[in-house]
Amino acid sequence: MVRSPLTFPWMWECREGACLRTPVSEATNGMTLGGCKLTCGKGLTLWPKPTGTFTLGKTPVSFKYSQVIVIVDAPQDVRGHVEKAGNRLKETLRDMRPPGGSCLELSSASDANLATRQLTIRVTVEQSDASLTLKTDESYKLNITHTDADQLEAHIEAKTFFGARHGMETLSQLVAYDDANDALMTVTADVRDAPVYPVRALTLDTSRNFISVAGLRRTIGAMAMNKLNTLHWHITDTHSFPIEITGEPRLAQYGAYSPREVYTRAEVEELVQFALERGVRLLPELDMPAHVGYGWQWGEKAGMGNLTMNIINENLYKVLKTILVEYNDVFQPDLFHIGGDEINLNCWKTTPEIAAFVKEKGGDPTDDEEYMKLWIQFQERVYDIDPPKESRLDPSKYIIQIWTTGKDQQIGDLLKQGYELILSNYDAWYLDCGGSAWVGKGNNWCSPYKSWQTVYENSPRKIAQSFQSSSDAAASQPASQSDFSAQILGGSAALWTEQADDANLDNKLWPRGAALAERLWAEPDTDSLAAQWRLVHHRRRMVARGVHAETMQPKYCHQYDGTCYID
Amino acid sequence: MVRSPLTFPWMWECREGACLRTPVSEATNGMTLGGCKLTCGKGLTLWPKPTGTFTLGKTPVSFKYSQVIVIVDAPQDVRGHVEKAGNRLKETLRDMRPPGGSCLELSSASDANLATRQLTIRVTVEQSDASLTLKTDESYKLNITHTDADQLEAHIEAKTFFGARHGMETLSQLVAYDDANDALMTVTADVRDAPVYPVRALTLDTSRNFISVAGLRRTIGAMAMNKLNTLHWHITDTHSFPIEITGEPRLAQYGAYSPREVYTRAEVEELVQFALERGVRLLPELDMPAHVGYGWQWGEKAGMGNLTMNIINENLYKVLKTILVEYNDVFQPDLFHIGGDEINLNCWKTTPEIAAFVKEKGGDPTDDEEYMKLWIQFQERVYDIDPPKESRLDPSKYIIQIWTTGKDQQIGDLLKQGYELILSNYDAWYLDCGGSAWVGKGNNWCSPYKSWQTVYENSPRKIAQSFQSSSDAAASQPASQSDFSAQILGGSAALWTEQADDANLDNKLWPRGAALAERLWAEPDTDSLAAQWRLVHHRRRMVARGVHAETMQPKYCHQYDGTCYID
Repeated sequence: MVRSPLTFPWMWECREGACLRTPVSEATNGMTLGGCKLTCGKGLTLWPKPTGTFTLGKTPVSFKYSQVIVIVDAPQDVRGHVEKAGNRLKETLRDMRPPGGSCLELSSASDANLATRQLTIRVTVEQSDASLTLKTDESYKLNITHTDADQLEAHIEAKTFFGARHGMETLSQLVAYDDANDALMTVTADVRDAPVYPVRALTLDTSRNFISVAGLRRTIGAMAMNKLNTLHWHITDTHSFPIEITGEPRLAQYGAYSPREVYTRAEVEELVQFALERGVRLLPELDMPAHVGYGWQWGEKAGMGNLTMNIINENLYKVLKTILVEYNDVFQPDLFHIGGDEINLNCWKTTPEIAAFVKEKGGDPTDDEEYMKLWIQFQERVYDIDPPKESRLDPSKYIIQIWTTGKDQQIGDLLKQGYELILSNYDAWYLDCGGSAWVGKGNNWCSPYKSWQTVYENSPRKIAQSFQSSSDAAASQPASQSDFSAQILGGSAALWTEQADDANLDNKLWPRGAALAERLWAEPDTDSLAAQWRLVHHRRRMVARGVHAETMQPKYCHQYDGTCYID
Repeated sequence: MVRSPLTFPWMWECREGACLRTPVSEATNGMTLGGCKLTCGKGLTLWPKPTGTFTLGKTPVSFKYSQVIVIVDAPQDVRGHVEKAGNRLKETLRDMRPPGGSCLELSSASDANLATRQLTIRVTVEQSDASLTLKTDESYKLNITHTDADQLEAHIEAKTFFGARHGMETLSQLVAYDDANDALMTVTADVRDAPVYPVRALTLDTSRNFISVAGLRRTIGAMAMNKLNTLHWHITDTHSFPIEITGEPRLAQYGAYSPREVYTRAEVEELVQFALERGVRLLPELDMPAHVGYGWQWGEKAGMGNLTMNIINENLYKVLKTILVEYNDVFQPDLFHIGGDEINLNCWKTTPEIAAFVKEKGGDPTDDEEYMKLWIQFQERVYDIDPPKESRLDPSKYIIQIWTTGKDQQIGDLLKQGYELILSNYDAWYLDCGGSAWVGKGNNWCSPYKSWQTVYENSPRKIAQSFQSSSDAAASQPASQSDFSAQILGGSAALWTEQADDANLDNKLWPRGAALAERLWAEPDTDSLAAQWRLVHHRRRMVARGVHAETMQPKYCHQYDGTCYID
């Protein structure tokens, strides 16, 4: 239905950093909502917020959405990536114009140059490294200038492609649709920015329910909007084995819910590339020796176990090698996740074959410790190195991802032992909590729902520091020499998919994934309430870009910053 | 990506009413999953479950998806509606075939007649009444037969179009895609069915956040899949006034969030028709005299009040008449909802003009009761009849929709006073509960999330009967003569949209709206666990038909009925 342009009796005014809807007749300094959000306060449109100093202009400058130019200066090895990111940025800006353009009576304000003003974006990348590691420099600088000669330019400078891509993301957040002129607008800006943690992750399970390749792509795209850089892909589990292993096709054949619910090798390879181009590493997981089952039925007959692997069976290691070599080829990961949780030692203890093996090696088959050692041997064998000397994993080789509560002493113990940690504490960062029970009645096991506020306020730094104090106290020392928070590599919010699939994936992940993203990018000292207006704005932007992020507030609150706020 | 047909090593077997995935080599009675669900147990594919006797065959019969014929026998006035419903049914069946057809190796089983077998659907409607009221007969009979001469026929008989439409819905639930033959399949059936309650409703708010016309259409379509018959449309509230009133355009002009977020009169008229064709009445609400605000700013200057109406202002009644006459024209409702909740009597008491009015009429301006009387007068004036004789509403004219908890004595009191009730008790039927707080931190006000199990087990009959007992006891009588449950017209689950809009509408409404639907259609004596397998199946069907219903369980549970179940 085509609507004729309407007289809309409201404008927005910026008052003390808030955009407030005001009758046109009373507005002394009126703007459209988009213009107000761009220029009012301290970066109302930016998410996650920059960690360096930044300044923004106070006057929106309009330009034509059809006149955006991207100029790339980058080493050959990453030039293609940067150019593609530039093209996507142009598409993002172009798509800000709503279908049919403005529905308002256009402004009669005379800006003679608007008809031809263009935005020129220069992207400069220094290094040729195209791989994302824990050491990658993700920093960037963004400068937007509006010269006396009416030239509108944005300059993004970064050490790496990954930093430059973040800069483009930030630039896109400093552009809004200008419905008074049927154009786009931006502001002058000087932004310096870099992340606090190198691992900013979502953990996504595709075993309990299958997530389509389209769903994974949408998720990766949404992560990129939030500068999250790691999709920890919990591909397989007890329920299904949905990935094609060309060297052992029976895994997916037996393990997939249906022939349609399999990631082919070609699809995974494309996905790895798709993610990398968006600054996201796919971190694959093969959960073992527990959390296995479907896909291994043929192997059970060959003595490899089921539900828990029979880790003394030699055939098992042949299959594992096939899988791991193929994962390595396909994902080329700098990190690999090997599961390892919820191992039922009793399961091994009560398997006569395994108990006999322990006895044969001179161990006490009734002692849990013997089976723990077995697991360590398994783990090291999978790691493909010499047998271990002691009954724990080597902190120089293993990073521990931990899902207990943020107050669990285990976190302090691991920090003291020198491990580097990725936090996924379930009391704040489990995104599946709070819905209907999936067995029985009432609500599910880790209810209540973890609100975006809870996600936001879960600070890895504070968690690490809380154990620092107790550790220091125990050692009767003053402030410790070694800073525990330096051992935190980052965090991962987890979506276990008992109750998620393509139908609700976006709602579960967003905007809570965005709350996580700002926590991990910036580790702000401020709380969720201070972030609220910006997140409400950012969530609307994500929806406009096709991500069905959960609704946070009445739209009223977005039109009257701060008037929904209750302390 | 085109996949070649795959060997899938699983089939399904029906054991004690459950479909269980079984290795092909071990299946003695193997079927595809779709075939098993159709024929195993007691109507695993039906939702809501029929209230009359029904029998289903044990052998699926296949037919070509391209060969479905609908023959209509109906009075002229409803013939168009029935034919349209028949066309939609054909589309629904056709769309069951996945894009590209089967991905399995096709069955070599020889069914010589499958190539040409067709499904002929005869629909017979008796009455010519095309309006939906509290008295409408929604019952139907459905017969599916497979004759010795290999004729496959379905016959639907109903008194009204509305019953016939329900019958077609049930028929669609007795058809599945047959991936072993790249065809459709059904079973022989004899179903008699009618609803328990005449009002089976969702209440949807479009003021806190706007819901697009596309979102409303999708909701109505999903309601029709569940035989819900009433969309109680809470159109306006304090936050926005998103509907065009042609007689007073300032309401939407001032009240809409933006010019794009307005339901035009033409759109609403189309929507009323769209809903009726799907067996759904649009029940409009004009919430007053509280819960008003945006849209009335111009009226505030004219003395009509704001946030609460100034109900002694004569100009107010002129505007209300304009709105109500237009609502009546557009919606032609048999029921109309007039809000009336959360009136702040103090607001009137402290308005000098209103206190003076009370005094002038001889009342005590400090007495709350006087303001209650004022409201009753307002209510009756809006009802457009003679002034009331007493200070309460007339039970023969008013139906009360009540949102207090199911244990609130107010329910018992209203039943004793003879009111008919529609239940919307917030402890079970508020679909907005359980997410992030929308002001402050933590979770929202009516947390926890109301699980589908809680929605399902909220029985209006049991609630009414619980007050019956206490009422009987108070009167020292044995079993009461008048049955309170006869005063229950039905129920409505409510989605208040502080935290809902197009991005999460489906997730919030479904499958919990389906749980509501079976409660109101059938008032089963059984609990949610007994309904679980069927709802999981039905939820998957809703997703396949384009509704993003919240995920309930790992797909595993759908492939192994009952093995996820914990008592």
